[in-house]
Amino acid sequence: MSDNRFVYADNAATTSVSPEVLGAMLPYLSEHYGNPSSLYSIGRDSAKAISAARDKIAALIGCKSSELFFTASGSEADNWAIKGAAYANQKKGRHIITTKYEHHAVLHSMDSLKREGFEITYLDILPDGQITPEMLEAQIRPDTSLVCMMYANNEIGSVLPIKELCDTAHKHGALFFTDAVQAVGNIPVSAAELGVDMLSFSGHKIHAPKGIGALYIKTGTKVYNLVDGGGQERGRRGGTENIAYIVGLAKALEIAVQSLPDMKRVAAMRDRLADGISKIPYSFINGGMEHRLPGNLNAAFEFIEGESLLLWLDLNGICASTGSACSSASLEPSHVLLSIGVPVEKAHGSLRLTLGHDNTDADVDYILERLPMIVDKLRAMSPLYEKIAHASV
Amino acid sequence: MSDNRFVYADNAATTSVSPEVLGAMLPYLSEHYGNPSSLYSIGRDSAKAISAARDKIAALIGCKSSELFFTASGSEADNWAIKGAAYANQKKGRHIITTKYEHHAVLHSMDSLKREGFEITYLDILPDGQITPEMLEAQIRPDTSLVCMMYANNEIGSVLPIKELCDTAHKHGALFFTDAVQAVGNIPVSAAELGVDMLSFSGHKIHAPKGIGALYIKTGTKVYNLVDGGGQERGRRGGTENIAYIVGLAKALEIAVQSLPDMKRVAAMRDRLADGISKIPYSFINGGMEHRLPGNLNAAFEFIEGESLLLWLDLNGICASTGSACSSASLEPSHVLLSIGVPVEKAHGSLRLTLGHDNTDADVDYILERLPMIVDKLRAMSPLYEKIAHASV
Repeated sequence: MSDNRFVYADNAATTSVSPEVLGAMLPYLSEHYGNPSSLYSIGRDSAKAISAARDKIAALIGCKSSELFFTASGSEADNWAIKGAAYANQKKGRHIITTKYEHHAVLHSMDSLKREGFEITYLDILPDGQITPEMLEAQIRPDTSLVCMMYANNEIGSVLPIKELCDTAHKHGALFFTDAVQAVGNIPVSAAELGVDMLSFSGHKIHAPKGIGALYIKTGTKVYNLVDGGGQERGRRGGTENIAYIVGLAKALEIAVQSLPDMKRVAAMRDRLADGISKIPYSFINGGMEHRLPGNLNAAFEFIEGESLLLWLDLNGICASTGSACSSASLEPSHVLLSIGVPVEKAHGSLRLTLGHDNTDADVDYILERLPMIVDKLRAMSPLYEKIAHASV
Repeated sequence: MSDNRFVYADNAATTSVSPEVLGAMLPYLSEHYGNPSSLYSIGRDSAKAISAARDKIAALIGCKSSELFFTASGSEADNWAIKGAAYANQKKGRHIITTKYEHHAVLHSMDSLKREGFEITYLDILPDGQITPEMLEAQIRPDTSLVCMMYANNEIGSVLPIKELCDTAHKHGALFFTDAVQAVGNIPVSAAELGVDMLSFSGHKIHAPKGIGALYIKTGTKVYNLVDGGGQERGRRGGTENIAYIVGLAKALEIAVQSLPDMKRVAAMRDRLADGISKIPYSFINGGMEHRLPGNLNAAFEFIEGESLLLWLDLNGICASTGSACSSASLEPSHVLLSIGVPVEKAHGSLRLTLGHDNTDADVDYILERLPMIVDKLRAMSPLYEKIAHASV
């Protein structure tokens, strides 16, 4: 057995801040501290830094600078898009369509709208994690004002045909919002090419710090503010700007987009991981392998509890996740896995491994060395597994 | 004439990040990058850091750790308190009382509630910047569900009798929220002693970075979420936590509270500044000097445009503000100054100087050397002033 390594395989939960990003940020956490709303030179310097970051990100994400607004997180951007568009467009109707496997920032925003009298339809998911335009077409109504679907799922990595889904929504006069938190930096994303009205993303999934996100709002889209305040973000999002993180987000996105070709290598590592895992008995992959984020793998191991698996992996220096990282503190089975038809007991034994640019072949080797041993060990403690193993002898 | 100095006298707009704060933050922008919601050790380390920061801040602000929630700004905390409490308590009534001189995060949150059918009463302000409990008592109604008053005003530094105002609100069964962004770190603040139901504050006014704030919510107070999402902040504020800034806020508040005794020195500098300015003809101080933040001075100079004054001060290395920093990009006269009865033309010639711990007597000397010269120079260009100066000869 090799020595213990440290392998971070939870890049969909969060990523480390890259040294270049930190380097770009540091001046704005020290000598450049002017308030961008101030008229004097150190204030104007801050305003210029924000403006340059906005221009850079807009170019990378395929939108105009005037269409890009900074937030403190992908979740804030999701809340803003959903609540802001729902209230601002309720004359068209108070019916909203979303999916059963959205992030909690979306699903819980929908809950808050329901509380105020909006009606929400939750689309089913196909077993491979996909949703077709026909499935949306079947549910859309004249009073549907907003359709909200994630670009790529955070647990099973399914990438949806957003352009086609958006076209369907538009045909019926509904706005289309996509939560692209998991997509940006992992696959090419262009707001203009997709045609969506709103698109959210986050910094900490792409090696910027935790605490920065952004919302694209297409020119002319009616969206009320979530955070009212001063004149920041052209009067659309109050609060003194987090200049350091805004600058960091621009640098991180620049690097992420430049690194997109390396995603082929990441996908190859992921596929090798899938092959290795498929040799473990009573295991299977959750979600289809086609139209899937390059770094995402989600497997389930019968007769095993996901939390125990994570803790043993942790003892071996491997960071992974079971279900959504955001919900892993709870013991409820993942709503995403349930939505694609994974039975509750199998969902409990799920493992998400998400690879990124920092991972290497040696990481994959190490996971494939340790994971089967841990699965064996945990199953040896399972009375149910023992019964089945004996029965099959 | 002395050489140019750099004098930052705009501490109410924002402050520099102190080196100790940056030092405390840096590990969480580099090696400690785990998602606090994750089960493995680097995730748990992040969760522990947040928990320790929350405990420290709660002790410093006079509340329980379970009553403290982190946000991305004072503005977000204001929006959350106002909108969250308004909707959650509308059974009591849809009438809210606030004041005419609140921060735009409050006033614009009220605008958004008005749009949805809430009724808002705006209390007048006395010429010295004060509001009495009797003035609140006169406007409160059985359907008043929320009273919202700032602890200290950001432009004229008036400190309100929050405990008494809160008692008045409670006598009528209304909740009380105070925006304490300008108070925390400048005067002693204890949520428990005040008795308020909600209290907001911000990091970047006390040498933490821009992009972190907090909201105190007293146990049992009904407040809906502003940002729905995962289980973060015990399910009450979604978005992966900004661990670095949370840790920074705790360190900054610790230093600020330890430094409160130094506020006597800051007040003495401010008073010397006021004395010096009072010798400039056609000048006067805005707001009463009693019940005023120690570092705040707001003066007005007739026949002068505030923006020109700021730009000339900037050329001399002095950073100051005219009206609210958040609104200084606009040319509208300050709503705060208008609320205490300053005429529009005088409001246009206002100057806010806000001192902090980093300021020295030499800074005051320098301002008192340059400011009169600049005022003279600008008045020499004013046709109106020339007429008056000639008339008085």
